[in-house]
Amino acid sequence: MNSHVEIRLSGSGGQGLLLAGVILAEAAIFDNKNAIQSQSYGPEARGGASKAEVIISDEQIDFPKVISPDLVLALTQIASDKYSKTVNQQGILIVDDSIELDGNYNYGRVIKVPIIKTAAEKVGRSIVANIVAVGLIAELTQMISRENIEKAVLSRVPKGTEDLNRKALMEGYLLAQSVL
Amino acid sequence: MNSHVEIRLSGSGGQGLLLAGVILAEAAIFDNKNAIQSQSYGPEARGGASKAEVIISDEQIDFPKVISPDLVLALTQIASDKYSKTVNQQGILIVDDSIELDGNYNYGRVIKVPIIKTAAEKVGRSIVANIVAVGLIAELTQMISRENIEKAVLSRVPKGTEDLNRKALMEGYLLAQSVL
Repeated sequence: MNSHVEIRLSGSGGQGLLLAGVILAEAAIFDNKNAIQSQSYGPEARGGASKAEVIISDEQIDFPKVISPDLVLALTQIASDKYSKTVNQQGILIVDDSIELDGNYNYGRVIKVPIIKTAAEKVGRSIVANIVAVGLIAELTQMISRENIEKAVLSRVPKGTEDLNRKALMEGYLLAQSVL
Repeated sequence: MNSHVEIRLSGSGGQGLLLAGVILAEAAIFDNKNAIQSQSYGPEARGGASKAEVIISDEQIDFPKVISPDLVLALTQIASDKYSKTVNQQGILIVDDSIELDGNYNYGRVIKVPIIKTAAEKVGRSIVANIVAVGLIAELTQMISRENIEKAVLSRVPKGTEDLNRKALMEGYLLAQSVL
């Protein structure tokens, strides 16, 4: 991907997308890039869809807001209905396989994979779907080294959950490889 | 304070300022305001000072970056040296009492209080200095109701630490009252 990537992560409130955004941003900085992580709250934040955003760039980031995302992740139907169409036409839309997309719209490249199911069944905890998504995004974009993604994950997840989250990350890589 | 407040929280990496920013933003949204929480990473993030930013407004927030903070918090000397002078002249600078300010500069209103010491000695854990700071800021700015600050704190802190964090919040309120 490009050396300037705008990422929008969407889902529901309890899915840990803020943490996913923070991890991607911190991993990018370990890789000597620049990054901004942000979360906007407003009337739309009360509607059941939550979003977190990250900009990663090799250059200085002048305008800190995601305008035309190169990558949109949607983990719930409500979030997808709201944000899937915001991905730019050269970008990647990643949706959980539980989501139905409006067939009348051209989203560009769509990657539909079982993120939540992978977290629940292969890792054993649906709560780590966010970390599966981090692995998936990192591997698809190839913007950040695996070493630094793992370092960022392990520095941010609760103590005692390191193995669980490392496994979630690996499953995210594998999901990416299944569609590459 | 004004109905549009730009807040910059600074300190060292392990002090939980991102969480403090998220809590302030979420509390504001519970209060039916708009908020943006962000964290920028760049060359400066490698220099030992960490910062998190929040904008809270009654209006829609058009430009999401903090330009001229109305409130700057500094919990470490390094962070203070870097960010204390960025507070605007009508704003409030809050520094931990361990910090020495450059006496040759006019910072506007300065509030120097024992945030870390209060967390360590009155609450019993220096790690909750961020939540003491949240209480202090909420009480000083009066932008967010106590009810919603507490709700936001309790929704974001690890399970089992609710009482500790509630106490930290109360100590933050008391610190604010000591200077009002």
